[in-house]
Amino acid sequence: MSDGRPIGILDSGVGGLSVAREITRLMPGERMVYFGDTARSPLGNRPDSVIRACAREGAAVLNEFNIKLLVVASTTISAVALDTVEKTSRNVPVIGSVMPGARAAVLRTGDRKIGVVGMPATIRSGTYKNAISRLDESVQVYENAAPLLASLVDEMMLDHDITRLTAQFYLYEMVDIGVDCLILGSSCLPPLMEVIQGTVGTRMQLIDSALWTAKEVQDILTALDLRNEASEDGAAQSGFMFSEEQRDNGGRIRLLYGSELPSMKTFDAGSIGA
Amino acid sequence: MSDGRPIGILDSGVGGLSVAREITRLMPGERMVYFGDTARSPLGNRPDSVIRACAREGAAVLNEFNIKLLVVASTTISAVALDTVEKTSRNVPVIGSVMPGARAAVLRTGDRKIGVVGMPATIRSGTYKNAISRLDESVQVYENAAPLLASLVDEMMLDHDITRLTAQFYLYEMVDIGVDCLILGSSCLPPLMEVIQGTVGTRMQLIDSALWTAKEVQDILTALDLRNEASEDGAAQSGFMFSEEQRDNGGRIRLLYGSELPSMKTFDAGSIGA
Repeated sequence: MSDGRPIGILDSGVGGLSVAREITRLMPGERMVYFGDTARSPLGNRPDSVIRACAREGAAVLNEFNIKLLVVASTTISAVALDTVEKTSRNVPVIGSVMPGARAAVLRTGDRKIGVVGMPATIRSGTYKNAISRLDESVQVYENAAPLLASLVDEMMLDHDITRLTAQFYLYEMVDIGVDCLILGSSCLPPLMEVIQGTVGTRMQLIDSALWTAKEVQDILTALDLRNEASEDGAAQSGFMFSEEQRDNGGRIRLLYGSELPSMKTFDAGSIGA
Repeated sequence: MSDGRPIGILDSGVGGLSVAREITRLMPGERMVYFGDTARSPLGNRPDSVIRACAREGAAVLNEFNIKLLVVASTTISAVALDTVEKTSRNVPVIGSVMPGARAAVLRTGDRKIGVVGMPATIRSGTYKNAISRLDESVQVYENAAPLLASLVDEMMLDHDITRLTAQFYLYEMVDIGVDCLILGSSCLPPLMEVIQGTVGTRMQLIDSALWTAKEVQDILTALDLRNEASEDGAAQSGFMFSEEQRDNGGRIRLLYGSELPSMKTFDAGSIGA
């Protein structure tokens, strides 16, 4: 059986395009419908009430598109309001972006010391700590909110002394403590993989939560027999919607998604999700 | 005559509290009604259409409060959408925060070389360049969008190597060129005065647009005979509204306003301004 329905991708902005990129790389036949609530971006500094509204409205938008699965590419929404997305999406499986990275890290840490960097709301929620403890309570978890790293990706300052110094500032304690697995707990961080690896050294393994989330999408679609085998270029037929007109974003979108978007629309979530 | 009506202060977030602080310092008797559209913050990276919506809705909110004057503390709104605020506020004088700093700089530059740092939308608008040219077309203007400085204030990283390096990154060319007057063209920047002065050296005079905007409010109120002489503590009776619940902001608000706010309310601008 081949299921041509699209995968819904919910994000708080453009960072989740890193998840879309990995989905396309792993499953080129799959169509995607992406909604990024750029009007509320950056979400990682906002109160939980706003993150919940974003989850509810965004999920309602995606559910209008006959999706076969909904993946929450925003780690902030996954950490704070995954239950809100689930309640709004009763008819499709929902995959968050916290558990896949947490699982990958627990399988890989030798010294049972995992680090997490992410946005303030994600770290404040304690979701990573809880998820990792449930998987293996002997693991110690070290977390740090790193909002400046997101600002540096916004400014496309990937290879810059300021970025190196900032990565150092957020991560030197984890190096000292002997963390051997670091989860990049925000979908906007993959462009900083190289500078972060350069900062923490090769002893620390980086876990790209975008990649592991895409792998989980692949596993679930395969297990439920929902893959689309009929097409070879799902990306070309995918739709990308943002709640705020995108400006001067060409470079940043290209950076996160890996190429230009096939199409881009501005969409007022409030009109459906209110 | 003593006019007890409040001064309306329109901002895109909490940065404009630096203007409120200077108003209180110069005119302790004046009551203020402040509206900060924190739900759209940071505004300085958003498209003009959003900045105009913020201007229209915020001005409509303030006009409900029988204000005697409206000051646009957000440099971004002043640069991009001052006309929108004026159209929405036909019955009160409107003061923007671009012209006061521009005027102060033109009066002070000896070498006719003025620098401006501000948020991307402000710089993109060309408003500072136009304002300064209209005042004195012999002056050369050097501008730089410096969004990371705002993020550093958000993170309260005022005295930090990252901040010094970032200030250097944005300003070293202006130092080389021989700019002798630098306008801090965003109301969120005053907390960085010291680190910026340390970076550019004492030869470059810093123009705090928040301070000069407050002085202009004082001049206009005096000229129009609208000062409140009857009270000695207007700040205590002032109201501060934000469009999004404020969280973990105690330190940042204190930093910008100089003390705790007497009261704080969450207020949905859409309910009036739509």
